[in-house]
Amino acid sequence: MRVGFVGLGAMGAHMARNLHREGQLTSVWSRTGEKAGALAAELGLQAPATLAQLAAGVDAVVSCVSADADVLEVAGALAPALATGSLLIDCSTTAADTARRAAELLRRGGVEFLDCPVSGGVEGAREGTLAIMAGGAPEAFERARPILEAMGRTVTLFGPVGSGQAAKATNQIMCAGIIEAVSEAMAFARAQGLPLEKLIDTLGKGAGSSWYFVHRAPNMVRGSFPAGFRVRLHAKDLAICRDMAARFGVSLPVVERMLAEYAELIARGHGDEDISATFRLKAELFEPDKNGSGG
Amino acid sequence: MRVGFVGLGAMGAHMARNLHREGQLTSVWSRTGEKAGALAAELGLQAPATLAQLAAGVDAVVSCVSADADVLEVAGALAPALATGSLLIDCSTTAADTARRAAELLRRGGVEFLDCPVSGGVEGAREGTLAIMAGGAPEAFERARPILEAMGRTVTLFGPVGSGQAAKATNQIMCAGIIEAVSEAMAFARAQGLPLEKLIDTLGKGAGSSWYFVHRAPNMVRGSFPAGFRVRLHAKDLAICRDMAARFGVSLPVVERMLAEYAELIARGHGDEDISATFRLKAELFEPDKNGSGG
Repeated sequence: MRVGFVGLGAMGAHMARNLHREGQLTSVWSRTGEKAGALAAELGLQAPATLAQLAAGVDAVVSCVSADADVLEVAGALAPALATGSLLIDCSTTAADTARRAAELLRRGGVEFLDCPVSGGVEGAREGTLAIMAGGAPEAFERARPILEAMGRTVTLFGPVGSGQAAKATNQIMCAGIIEAVSEAMAFARAQGLPLEKLIDTLGKGAGSSWYFVHRAPNMVRGSFPAGFRVRLHAKDLAICRDMAARFGVSLPVVERMLAEYAELIARGHGDEDISATFRLKAELFEPDKNGSGG
Repeated sequence: MRVGFVGLGAMGAHMARNLHREGQLTSVWSRTGEKAGALAAELGLQAPATLAQLAAGVDAVVSCVSADADVLEVAGALAPALATGSLLIDCSTTAADTARRAAELLRRGGVEFLDCPVSGGVEGAREGTLAIMAGGAPEAFERARPILEAMGRTVTLFGPVGSGQAAKATNQIMCAGIIEAVSEAMAFARAQGLPLEKLIDTLGKGAGSSWYFVHRAPNMVRGSFPAGFRVRLHAKDLAICRDMAARFGVSLPVVERMLAEYAELIARGHGDEDISATFRLKAELFEPDKNGSGG
């Protein structure tokens, strides 16, 4: 299968390289044409000038772009040019509704769409160990499997188009609540004068533990929050969760609270730190100079 | 060392039996004297009528009672009767300040106090696999170690008197935020129509995972919340966390929110369910008949 790749950002560039390594990549395209030109020159690929030209030469396109509007724009540009029976595999993180709209744009031309958001970060993209959460038709998913397995280690179909995004959103809601819990608990523990490394070691083995506590509470001890999972990216994902919940008329307390916390962190210039930087705000609760209430 | 045990509730009765099994238990006392009388008759122990009589015949007392006031009452009653150099090991969950007040009551008579709250539930108490978080003098802790190791598997000294309670409170704050996150995420996932078992299996291996997600999200799929960690007991512990934070002039968002959720669950008769019953309230957000906002 000839595969084209659209979107060569921090994640996409690594994912494209892994597809190339498996001999599946034919051509690349990026909004800033230089990125595509450079990668194509390095790897011996084509770098067509337009999305329509890219579409004309491949059986499947993988896209990894930033925003919901970008996905719809890419799908709209590819739709008239992709052959009947070809695939668009979108690895961007979007609302489930955006995935369904993209699928609808493509369905008229007989093109199958799969929403395939990933988790595992830049490191997972580079090493090909991403977890990929897919939504779409089972037949399309099976055709896409070799492509997905070139980029990720765990590849799971959750249901029809939109289900991959719903699964990813579920994960992002959990991450939000857990990082708040860990941050608040660690700020409390520090105020109590507890030995924090010993605490992480002990509580990390118990029922209150979590991946974030074991792997990111040490950031809080050091007061250093290297990315990681960047605050501004999680904020973007949580805004999607907010929109998906709003379609049910629902406001989700964990999501709303963490969007407010992240807005504060971003306003203070911490948007590119790991989400464990939430500890900064929780720690301030215990600092009388800043909260004005004394200790 | 001759050990007396005070408080033969759901936890204490098992802990006393484990001390007896290790040949360390001399006598037992309970507020309702029948419990002590029955256990003493079964195990061939003494069941003195008063705490002062219990104190007169032992080198150490382990207490496991319900409320902060009970701990102070027990410490006050034992203080005049315990020999200089003896130990009071309190396994109740209280505020750190209560531990410090109890220690002060005993210090005048040369009795050492250790706050040793436990986690692991009734199952851990029965099997002797509790995690025990201790606060007190290192020398007193070392003397207490054989007693603690008869009741628990992990025994950790965190610092001076009060530190055990502070460590336990930290853990309870994390549990609160995590169960809210997992409940909210699972309610969202169900509303999205995701296959929930597959979701638990997949996300349980990722960075959004936690002990509670892996072990209690299945309760949410079944709609059944057998204890477990009872809502009303976690609410009691969180009220202690609230008080400990209030001493710094701080109100903790995760703690306050979960106290409100638990008050609602208790009001509806779910106080003896596992804390994963929080899912009941989060799921209602997505039920238009109940929140009146439609979907």
